[in-house]
Amino acid sequence: MHSPQFTAESSSNGMVERDFTVGEVPGVLWSPASGADGAPLVLLGHGGGNHKRHPAMAGRARLLVTGCGFHAAVIDAPGHGDRPRTAHDEQEIAELRRAQAAGEPEGPVVVRYNARLAELAVPEWQATLDALQQRPEIGADGPVGYFGIGLGTAIGVPLVAVEPRITAAVFGLMWPDALVETARRITVPIEFGLQWDDERIPREAGLALFDAFASKEKTLHANAGKHVDFPRFEADSAVRFFARHLGRVVTSPA
Amino acid sequence: MHSPQFTAESSSNGMVERDFTVGEVPGVLWSPASGADGAPLVLLGHGGGNHKRHPAMAGRARLLVTGCGFHAAVIDAPGHGDRPRTAHDEQEIAELRRAQAAGEPEGPVVVRYNARLAELAVPEWQATLDALQQRPEIGADGPVGYFGIGLGTAIGVPLVAVEPRITAAVFGLMWPDALVETARRITVPIEFGLQWDDERIPREAGLALFDAFASKEKTLHANAGKHVDFPRFEADSAVRFFARHLGRVVTSPA
Repeated sequence: MHSPQFTAESSSNGMVERDFTVGEVPGVLWSPASGADGAPLVLLGHGGGNHKRHPAMAGRARLLVTGCGFHAAVIDAPGHGDRPRTAHDEQEIAELRRAQAAGEPEGPVVVRYNARLAELAVPEWQATLDALQQRPEIGADGPVGYFGIGLGTAIGVPLVAVEPRITAAVFGLMWPDALVETARRITVPIEFGLQWDDERIPREAGLALFDAFASKEKTLHANAGKHVDFPRFEADSAVRFFARHLGRVVTSPA
Repeated sequence: MHSPQFTAESSSNGMVERDFTVGEVPGVLWSPASGADGAPLVLLGHGGGNHKRHPAMAGRARLLVTGCGFHAAVIDAPGHGDRPRTAHDEQEIAELRRAQAAGEPEGPVVVRYNARLAELAVPEWQATLDALQQRPEIGADGPVGYFGIGLGTAIGVPLVAVEPRITAAVFGLMWPDALVETARRITVPIEFGLQWDDERIPREAGLALFDAFASKEKTLHANAGKHVDFPRFEADSAVRFFARHLGRVVTSPA
């Protein structure tokens, strides 16, 4: 089993940020500057075409670390960020650009490509979790959550379905085609986001994916607006969801 | 124009509670013990068969008053709480009990009865708002919201449609039949709750009512579970919604 290799560390405003690699996969771990021992860990899955250093990742990490005292970790998906693109990556990305330029639905390409990325990424996430749990400040017994939208959902649904250590998850903005059967095996609490006027993912498709989860506790958040209008306050909501389910309370009077 | 007549006052944990009447309509006003001048006001509509003293009303008021520094007010709907029931009320309630006992859908009775209650209640709410805004600690210029589920939505949708002083509203758990046309005239931000497995209101009916609102900013919160399982954390969410839209910030790190 790999241990995480830490390659850089910095600290600001009560949050410690450490770059790491597990095998060939690079990631970032954010932790509270103090009192972090045994704190819950939330795994962050980035969106398609983005990477571990996207501002949304650091923003969500800050909410989790400074708002809840949690750890947060992200890794680059295959072909993303600091990882090499294969010929298959290049081919699928070219096909996606072609479909977009032609005004064709991008769903078929995204669904197929993301399903392939998920096959590669699920064991990478499991190895990353193995490694991070060897760290004394995380440990093997702390609660673990997963938070990923778009590609982060395409990878996260199959990950959560096979990974019993993950006990709560936030998903959204993905077609159901490759995920419905897997979602039916998920029973942990979930929060799921979609855009009511999404011009890429048909409304009925998003509702069908939410409907598929077998979770007794599940919440749909549907906001007016197009795909890219996914509101920032949903990250605040996700953090409160994890605070409820991973066992620490956000210090809010409401 | 009536002023509110205050009939009782008590205070606990930073919140002042005052019983009042406006004309024949009794209500309760909750305010911060200090610093309330010009604070936003949220009107609370109670559910069918309930009344101004239902614990959910005081609970939501406490979140708004102590969490946000807002005022909150509730009045008894016609035929509810301390108000007399008419022969029409008795007749509709008997018809509802009969339908429930026979295992028939209750929608037709609730929709018809609540639409009649709304005709009576909308001018009562407007007179109440007129009166409350005469109070110096509220004033005529402060932001006003409306929060009502079930019967509170049956009354609130026509109220918000005609009342330009109300600039944000939380609704949910109601059939669309009598409300869709009115909802199409509402453009202020709304948050709307439904139960994904509601055994009384079909899922498609709830989605249709949410869809009807013309608001550019609207959010659907759909939770797994039956009608009565509507989760308490939705009240926390509603309070954050009002904090965002009525201009004061909940003091949460997340």
